[in-house]
Amino acid sequence: MNAFTPEVQVAIARTRDEVARLHEELVRYELVVWTGGNISARVPGADLFVIKPSGVSYDDLAPENMILCDLEGSVIPNTPGWERSPSSDTAAHAYVYRNLPEVGGVVHTHSTYATAWAARGEEIPCVITAMADEFGGPIPVGPFAIIGDDSIGRGIVATLEGHRSRAVLMQNHGVFTIGKDAKDAVKAAVMTEDVARTVHLAKQGGPLIPIPQDAIDALFDRYQNVYGQQPAGVTK
Amino acid sequence: MNAFTPEVQVAIARTRDEVARLHEELVRYELVVWTGGNISARVPGADLFVIKPSGVSYDDLAPENMILCDLEGSVIPNTPGWERSPSSDTAAHAYVYRNLPEVGGVVHTHSTYATAWAARGEEIPCVITAMADEFGGPIPVGPFAIIGDDSIGRGIVATLEGHRSRAVLMQNHGVFTIGKDAKDAVKAAVMTEDVARTVHLAKQGGPLIPIPQDAIDALFDRYQNVYGQQPAGVTK
Amino acid sequence: MNAFTPEVQVAIARTRDEVARLHEELVRYELVVWTGGNISARVPGADLFVIKPSGVSYDDLAPENMILCDLEGSVIPNTPGWERSPSSDTAAHAYVYRNLPEVGGVVHTHSTYATAWAARGEEIPCVITAMADEFGGPIPVGPFAIIGDDSIGRGIVATLEGHRSRAVLMQNHGVFTIGKDAKDAVKAAVMTEDVARTVHLAKQGGPLIPIPQDAIDALFDRYQNVYGQQPAGVTK
Amino acid sequence: MNAFTPEVQVAIARTRDEVARLHEELVRYELVVWTGGNISARVPGADLFVIKPSGVSYDDLAPENMILCDLEGSVIPNTPGWERSPSSDTAAHAYVYRNLPEVGGVVHTHSTYATAWAARGEEIPCVITAMADEFGGPIPVGPFAIIGDDSIGRGIVATLEGHRSRAVLMQNHGVFTIGKDAKDAVKAAVMTEDVARTVHLAKQGGPLIPIPQDAIDALFDRYQNVYGQQPAGVTK
Repeated sequence: MNAFTPEVQVAIARTRDEVARLHEELVRYELVVWTGGNISARVPGADLFVIKPSGVSYDDLAPENMILCDLEGSVIPNTPGWERSPSSDTAAHAYVYRNLPEVGGVVHTHSTYATAWAARGEEIPCVITAMADEFGGPIPVGPFAIIGDDSIGRGIVATLEGHRSRAVLMQNHGVFTIGKDAKDAVKAAVMTEDVARTVHLAKQGGPLIPIPQDAIDALFDRYQNVYGQQPAGVTK
Repeated sequence: MNAFTPEVQVAIARTRDEVARLHEELVRYELVVWTGGNISARVPGADLFVIKPSGVSYDDLAPENMILCDLEGSVIPNTPGWERSPSSDTAAHAYVYRNLPEVGGVVHTHSTYATAWAARGEEIPCVITAMADEFGGPIPVGPFAIIGDDSIGRGIVATLEGHRSRAVLMQNHGVFTIGKDAKDAVKAAVMTEDVARTVHLAKQGGPLIPIPQDAIDALFDRYQNVYGQQPAGVTK
Repeated sequence: MNAFTPEVQVAIARTRDEVARLHEELVRYELVVWTGGNISARVPGADLFVIKPSGVSYDDLAPENMILCDLEGSVIPNTPGWERSPSSDTAAHAYVYRNLPEVGGVVHTHSTYATAWAARGEEIPCVITAMADEFGGPIPVGPFAIIGDDSIGRGIVATLEGHRSRAVLMQNHGVFTIGKDAKDAVKAAVMTEDVARTVHLAKQGGPLIPIPQDAIDALFDRYQNVYGQQPAGVTK
Repeated sequence: MNAFTPEVQVAIARTRDEVARLHEELVRYELVVWTGGNISARVPGADLFVIKPSGVSYDDLAPENMILCDLEGSVIPNTPGWERSPSSDTAAHAYVYRNLPEVGGVVHTHSTYATAWAARGEEIPCVITAMADEFGGPIPVGPFAIIGDDSIGRGIVATLEGHRSRAVLMQNHGVFTIGKDAKDAVKAAVMTEDVARTVHLAKQGGPLIPIPQDAIDALFDRYQNVYGQQPAGVTK
């Protein structure tokens, strides 16, 4: 098989499970149709990531047909699923993992409302508190880029580096999100479509009320540091 | 455990069941995504309420992880679920229970169409009879308020006190609804999104026909007093 | 029990089953929320109809809690479900059955897009062939009318009598549809929302292309007489 | 029974299975309501195709009630399902199979957003990369045509012949898609509604950014030749 240590083999197996399972969330939230969209996750403790195969139905995804790649996006031979082609967006995912070491998961969708903003090359303004919480400001637009080489990955990294937002609208294309792990990136994809839809509808009805920058800052800070359950050992 | 009387213990257990179960309605009616939104219910006969934990998946909600609070919003120690943080909107719920004694349930969502109205700070006009039935007039807008202290609670109470509507659109934020019990507040949340959507779509197509005030009054009166099943002992 | 003949008792039982079951279609097609909307069916061979109880959850509908009424809308005592109140729209259904003897079923919803047209008092123009097939022209608007007496029923009958359409948009209110039986009226309610949505969206994007009247006539005639399966004994 | 060779009998049985099953995808993606819409598939190795019966509920579709026709659209007598009428669009499907020998499947829907474009007679511009991938340019509009004779079929063939798009919006009517097999045509129907919705929403918000023609060409070429899994024996 492979020269991976037992620890890395366990990490790979867990990552395969997680990536296969998280794809169900894309279906549940109606972010994808047919075989579109994909999720990847970095294997903790290794220069590897796991990604969806190309053009395979969401009904047929399972841990064993997820595909293991190195950080150049090359499939690791003789591992489960390796006989299939990985997602056609694999080069973009790999570029993100190589250049943003804090990123543990990447998600790509053509979710409807977000892609509508992308077709106009228009960033989503931060006019609802849930968006300030989650993204800390507007969701930015990245460049138009052709699929298949590094150009999408470069556009994602150039747009998101140093930005609070974990989501970018790639012009005329769709959404890429990043996260500390794959679940976090999936959450960003879900919230991107949710705010894209809400702000689209709001804008249809008339002028939007901006949220003052200091309120956006306060909301983002609180949500990143206080919301949800604290890790064990943190006193409330 | 606690110094609660057996009667209060039974009331707490029933309220935990009800609050956990009612969250399923928020999912069914697509009023929430991911871990957003929350429901609370006052414990009948006690200065207590039960609320959803913060940042926990809707798939994982159960009676035993609902959180018991006093009317200051403090978690009651050594009760089921107390090791978790309650909803980050707990202070707002507590403020409502302290100030509106007739309120038995509170619901908060970022449901799409209602939040779109909120992002414009625009009240929903009463142009459909179902809205006159349920809310007796427009759904009003409350102030922009920061999450985490009393300011949201104060905004809800100041807007709804003396108003027929059980729903308020908090500017740039989302919906809070109140009810005689939690189910009633959930119904108000469901109907708020339903009328927010219908009136949004109606307005897109051209001028709306207002409903005369006396007809609104008659519809509201009938629905509050005649609609549905009468309690046992009331002759038809 | 009752003085109904065995034949009528069988017809009542079948009608209860049908009315209870058809309510599931309103949920499936998302035409109703909470306890809104209602279906009734005339009992074949009797001056009776069966209707949904008022304010009861769709999860709790069953043949034995459907309510049997005479054509004045009065509940028949000592029949299953009679201890509950019938739908608050019962008077309107009864008026239709008294005045349109060919009608075997009536459906009422506040389905979203249709109600949006109703809030503007605007008929839905016949610009898609499926609408010509089903309704033979525009879906008309009936008057604003208060719930609870004959005024809704009068508005429905005055608008639909002699009209090809089996659906009417009651101004500021919602949809009433009629049919040769309850299933046919449910189909009309489903198709009303479908065309209300499609034509709403079409109109948002720019001018609509009208369908020539002779083409509407030909489509309506073909659909009413040729579409679907012929009764046994009709040669193809 | 019939004079079909054993090979053709097997091919017919497989085609019946496939056509019955694929109709579930139309329901899953909400492209159809009630009994609307239909799928057909050419029987490989025979001048035959299999199509949905007319006016039958999607819940009741099964391989044995699919209807076998020759390429003139005549039902083959004494085959399973032959006692029912085939889809009222059978003549259009037959015309396509007679005139486009490379087509193995045809799908027809009145899916909402696509039909909205059709009601304006407006082609869907190619402003998102998924549309360039799948259709290689805009989705064109075919003529207004009456149901029941060859005129719809002629309109489909005249519009799609030599066009990259596998989908056509028939004016005031709905969508027809073709594919190398029925699954491919279903995918085209799913993607048509997806891009119709996204581009509709994008256009509501302001001017769209066009995709340069050479980028459309490159995307279409890559997707048709590289995307997805290669047949066995093709080296990656």
